[in-house]
Amino acid sequence: VLDRDVILERYMRVRALTAALVAPLSAEDMAVQSMPEASPVKWHLAHTTWFFEEFVLRGWRDERWRVLFNSYYEGAGPRHARAGRGLLSRPSLDEVRSWRSSVDDRMHPYIQRAPPSELACVLLGTHHEQQHQELILTDVLHAFSFNELKPAYVEAPPRRDVPIPTKRWCAFDETIARIGHAGDGFAFDNETPQHRVLVGAFSLASSLVTNREYADFIADRGYQRPELWLSDGWAMVQREGWTAPIYWDGDRAFTLYGLQPRDPNAPVTHVSFYEADAYARWAAARLPTEQEWERAAEAGGLSQMFDEAWQWTASAHLPYPRFRPLEGVLGEYNGKFMSGQMVLRGGSRLSPPDHVRATYRNFFPPFARWQMTGIRLARD
Amino acid sequence: VLDRDVILERYMRVRALTAALVAPLSAEDMAVQSMPEASPVKWHLAHTTWFFEEFVLRGWRDERWRVLFNSYYEGAGPRHARAGRGLLSRPSLDEVRSWRSSVDDRMHPYIQRAPPSELACVLLGTHHEQQHQELILTDVLHAFSFNELKPAYVEAPPRRDVPIPTKRWCAFDETIARIGHAGDGFAFDNETPQHRVLVGAFSLASSLVTNREYADFIADRGYQRPELWLSDGWAMVQREGWTAPIYWDGDRAFTLYGLQPRDPNAPVTHVSFYEADAYARWAAARLPTEQEWERAAEAGGLSQMFDEAWQWTASAHLPYPRFRPLEGVLGEYNGKFMSGQMVLRGGSRLSPPDHVRATYRNFFPPFARWQMTGIRLARD
Amino acid sequence: VLDRDVILERYMRVRALTAALVAPLSAEDMAVQSMPEASPVKWHLAHTTWFFEEFVLRGWRDERWRVLFNSYYEGAGPRHARAGRGLLSRPSLDEVRSWRSSVDDRMHPYIQRAPPSELACVLLGTHHEQQHQELILTDVLHAFSFNELKPAYVEAPPRRDVPIPTKRWCAFDETIARIGHAGDGFAFDNETPQHRVLVGAFSLASSLVTNREYADFIADRGYQRPELWLSDGWAMVQREGWTAPIYWDGDRAFTLYGLQPRDPNAPVTHVSFYEADAYARWAAARLPTEQEWERAAEAGGLSQMFDEAWQWTASAHLPYPRFRPLEGVLGEYNGKFMSGQMVLRGGSRLSPPDHVRATYRNFFPPFARWQMTGIRLARD
Amino acid sequence: VLDRDVILERYMRVRALTAALVAPLSAEDMAVQSMPEASPVKWHLAHTTWFFEEFVLRGWRDERWRVLFNSYYEGAGPRHARAGRGLLSRPSLDEVRSWRSSVDDRMHPYIQRAPPSELACVLLGTHHEQQHQELILTDVLHAFSFNELKPAYVEAPPRRDVPIPTKRWCAFDETIARIGHAGDGFAFDNETPQHRVLVGAFSLASSLVTNREYADFIADRGYQRPELWLSDGWAMVQREGWTAPIYWDGDRAFTLYGLQPRDPNAPVTHVSFYEADAYARWAAARLPTEQEWERAAEAGGLSQMFDEAWQWTASAHLPYPRFRPLEGVLGEYNGKFMSGQMVLRGGSRLSPPDHVRATYRNFFPPFARWQMTGIRLARD
Repeated sequence: VLDRDVILERYMRVRALTAALVAPLSAEDMAVQSMPEASPVKWHLAHTTWFFEEFVLRGWRDERWRVLFNSYYEGAGPRHARAGRGLLSRPSLDEVRSWRSSVDDRMHPYIQRAPPSELACVLLGTHHEQQHQELILTDVLHAFSFNELKPAYVEAPPRRDVPIPTKRWCAFDETIARIGHAGDGFAFDNETPQHRVLVGAFSLASSLVTNREYADFIADRGYQRPELWLSDGWAMVQREGWTAPIYWDGDRAFTLYGLQPRDPNAPVTHVSFYEADAYARWAAARLPTEQEWERAAEAGGLSQMFDEAWQWTASAHLPYPRFRPLEGVLGEYNGKFMSGQMVLRGGSRLSPPDHVRATYRNFFPPFARWQMTGIRLARD
Repeated sequence: VLDRDVILERYMRVRALTAALVAPLSAEDMAVQSMPEASPVKWHLAHTTWFFEEFVLRGWRDERWRVLFNSYYEGAGPRHARAGRGLLSRPSLDEVRSWRSSVDDRMHPYIQRAPPSELACVLLGTHHEQQHQELILTDVLHAFSFNELKPAYVEAPPRRDVPIPTKRWCAFDETIARIGHAGDGFAFDNETPQHRVLVGAFSLASSLVTNREYADFIADRGYQRPELWLSDGWAMVQREGWTAPIYWDGDRAFTLYGLQPRDPNAPVTHVSFYEADAYARWAAARLPTEQEWERAAEAGGLSQMFDEAWQWTASAHLPYPRFRPLEGVLGEYNGKFMSGQMVLRGGSRLSPPDHVRATYRNFFPPFARWQMTGIRLARD
Repeated sequence: VLDRDVILERYMRVRALTAALVAPLSAEDMAVQSMPEASPVKWHLAHTTWFFEEFVLRGWRDERWRVLFNSYYEGAGPRHARAGRGLLSRPSLDEVRSWRSSVDDRMHPYIQRAPPSELACVLLGTHHEQQHQELILTDVLHAFSFNELKPAYVEAPPRRDVPIPTKRWCAFDETIARIGHAGDGFAFDNETPQHRVLVGAFSLASSLVTNREYADFIADRGYQRPELWLSDGWAMVQREGWTAPIYWDGDRAFTLYGLQPRDPNAPVTHVSFYEADAYARWAAARLPTEQEWERAAEAGGLSQMFDEAWQWTASAHLPYPRFRPLEGVLGEYNGKFMSGQMVLRGGSRLSPPDHVRATYRNFFPPFARWQMTGIRLARD
Repeated sequence: VLDRDVILERYMRVRALTAALVAPLSAEDMAVQSMPEASPVKWHLAHTTWFFEEFVLRGWRDERWRVLFNSYYEGAGPRHARAGRGLLSRPSLDEVRSWRSSVDDRMHPYIQRAPPSELACVLLGTHHEQQHQELILTDVLHAFSFNELKPAYVEAPPRRDVPIPTKRWCAFDETIARIGHAGDGFAFDNETPQHRVLVGAFSLASSLVTNREYADFIADRGYQRPELWLSDGWAMVQREGWTAPIYWDGDRAFTLYGLQPRDPNAPVTHVSFYEADAYARWAAARLPTEQEWERAAEAGGLSQMFDEAWQWTASAHLPYPRFRPLEGVLGEYNGKFMSGQMVLRGGSRLSPPDHVRATYRNFFPPFARWQMTGIRLARD
């Protein structure tokens, strides 16, 4: 059963963090949409609020806002065109912020008095908002990357010397593993039901592929050798002219701190599944399946699992055995995206720490590069 | 010779009007780019300032701004991608406004002391800014049209009962007319040189096609009858699903005052050349050539020539005999657009009154609908 | 070990069947390419011959033919553009046929004397050609479908009254199944290695979804209800205007026999994965995983497994555990297509009977509709 | 009045020439469509026959053929998709040829007995077919150019040493010229009515720009200098990667004789309007207006006017004053293409000699390169 006070505290904390995250940005910064897959920050602020209004409070003052800030829920009625979110100068940022306050003001008493059966939806809304917290940062980075001024979201912190993790292969024996979420804690529907999987023996790298290692791949003509690539990936390399991760710029990389020297020991990030897969082939290794990754995560002992970069797996985003999406419109949350997406596991520097877990199934199309995505190798 | 004081007064007046025009808009409103052909208002504010910095003052503090706000001048170096102007949250509106002030502060003494030969460029810059004043309004209207909230740029003024112009045909005899600009006044290079043209006898409608008349065309299945359309126009009708002027919405039309009842006696606006041409064919008439239009304008006696809507002509934007573009980079201003564009004559409700003249050659592609464009009929 | 005589016999039989299959077609029929994914029949005739020349004989008389008829093997050098195969009026059909004879003449002694280690490649070439035999028929059907004359590949045979299979659910218990190919028989590399998989309990429909059943789905507004569809599938429905299987035309369907009345009891065919998945959701069932399908096929007792239509599974085309592609250029045969493809199992009316088997992993993109593809339901 | 015998003789001669032109081609060669703007030769054979069946005989045996071979006449009912003409393997070439014979058999007595008022349409049909004769050759060349075998339409004739024309500027005084067709001879509707135009003084080059001259333009970085190009042209250069005329290949050019050494003294051909215009600017000259060209052609004394390459003019394809298209469906022949097209004057090596004349207004979009198009310079 869900603890009302815990949920209320979580709600307030998550909402406050969203506000804190956007503090360095101007109204203009928050208006930009750099591609259909990305959204303006203002839209994120509104959509995460829309979630509570639509699925919990239902106190619309202007029904047109239902349309403007619906993301992809067919069951919630018509939607403003996804690629046109950057056209919405109205409602203004101030109006959106005011709406956020209004929703918060109404959610507070709601959480305190709602029937217990309704609290799950509130909890889902907080996890939903955490997903958008990470998207806010990746979308800002993407939008800023098109600006010749190369703006920084925030000042770079003082450089810390990170001890380089010693990379080693961690071996796992064949077993029948329990995969997926069970128990009382929160999980998205796509992590359920827990089920048994025969996972063969494998080894997993204890840490992520570094910028230095990835640079070796490039230097070895990795982006010029079709035999290293899946067919769709090679087509993308040629059509888009990929020669490096999306934000690499000579010896530097574009980051939320602006253009920065690239730390060779840091994990390579902002690579697509295609690049991760090609790198693994070049390295005489492979990407782990999501079951292998989860098994290793449950076993513990590996580093950079949740705190550096999401890790592409070799697994397509498909339903677990006996998967049932959530009832009603919220069943669209994950279930309809079980085609054309690859699973990522773990979490990133940008993920709220209390958002991730070993059973989490993040997913993006195999060509996506604007997320904080990296590479962990596996081998037989 | 150019009068220094007149130019200074004009410079200050034009610059001030630009500021006044954008006063009703928020920073967010000014950030939106709704299509590659349109620009954010902030970009217009910056580009019109860029013009003076680039071609007159050359006092760049940040060379990257040269790139950001160059429109299409190949000779002025690299350019930020046209379709990506809406991504430029930086520099901020405040920074752009500050730059405008800085340029104004420097232009003032410059105009007072510049060599006479340099004043023509300043004058050109003011006419350039007036062109962008109209674009600011048409681009805002286009951007707002995508928003389900249908925002108004300003409150609608009280409805005035306009006397309906009596439409009549004004006949003109064959003559050898002087076409194009001559003399001391300002003109763009594409209006020169003045030259003689044998213009046959023709008649011109004394006023513009009204919304009521255009509605009759629609009611008579104008958008369903290919025989009324040029081949390229018909292809556009089918591909884009055109069934009415771009901003018509039932009995209303979207305007800078928001959604408003459509005045049947007002001139139809926001039609493409293809629609104007199809309407004329339906009406057993034709569009005038630009020479016919200019001849009639010089003769006088017609109404709605400069103050309602630009009037599509049957003429492609081609060089006049012995046309020479301006020297240097400014030769790109008009000359390189002498392909794929149709000439419009007159002026519109949105045009600054001291900007237009009988020899003015405005031009847009035949499919463009977001400008304040209307129809004046001609016949043999 | 491979039996030389068996392979020779198989080689001759397969090659002769290809010739027989194209006998009803004119040189013009064989020149058409209806979309990038389909190829002209002449190109199929040439490419299947190219396979033996490239990987076995290496007796090129004109190196440019290596380019013209290379399909997708990066390791075999440059390729004629895939979408431009329909432009190749030269070499003529007669020249291609003559080349086929020449290769057959050289393959005959080659097979009789080749080192045993080389015979596997010959055998692979025959299975490769069998795949193209089916593609020849599906590509001809697709090409003919664009012709207002609705040509027939062959005359329709006399209508046979097929006993309607009684549909029932066949239940299977949880087990650890051996999945994939092992042993001496032929298999493609993507069927290997055999490995153990924990397959939970499930039931499989004994026969395929019929045209009548699929018509019920349509009548129940199946193509208008987004909640039945995966997100990518719904986007396709809307963008492409899908309202029925690709070749349905009122009460008839376009077939290799021309436009024919649709047999309500026959399996529905020419549906995409998206349609199969949406149908299954509508029917309160699901598609089987490829492991479930294979387990059931090994168990036996179901009908329409191999002889009506390929059956979409819920499984993406991913590598089996410890999968190794073939050595060298032939490693591109299947391995590089392990992204963006769904697995189909079984075989179709158009498949050569000695070509299919229970471990066979056919694959196509989820939107593909021009193959002989159908639906078998599963449930928990 | 039209002479019945002359028309009959002309009909038979034109139809026979079409048959002769395609004699070197196989049924496969005649099936290829290399781009939407080009058509298969078989389609040309059928469409030119369709013209007589549709507009004269109206003896359809299969109404579907009306659809298959209608080019662009909205008034003649539905049309097979233009880009899908290469999919029409049926009717076969033999069937089309048989149809041609049938039409010829019926046209013969028709011409002998038709009411005089109907003969104009027959005459138009012969000129229509002559236009397609040239298109057959340019379309074959385009289709063959994609084939790595670089086929030749016919063997190259023995090289003849052409005397190089001495280029000189021919000066013309200002005059009021009669432009356009008048009198009894044949002309297309877009050449009418004859009208007076004030044509200023100008000079015209006595011969066409040669390959050597055009190579100098390339060597002088003509394709890298935006200041030489119209804006649309420069966009095309960059998007399409143009660096030379379409069929240039090192020191050779692809021709109807296959790859051939390029004769430096021959006129440059297969250039777009954009390239012609850029070359002229580079050469400190300009393209002539169509009125200048016609005036000079009437005056006589220039070479290469009709027998080498069509000459791009500076004139858009617009209606002449008081232009009226033909009555009925044939009014679509030229009139609806008076947008987006530039006028070419003269005739080419591929034009039937009795097809061209001084008033002829050929037209193609400014980017078209696959026609036999060249450059004649003008200057003030």
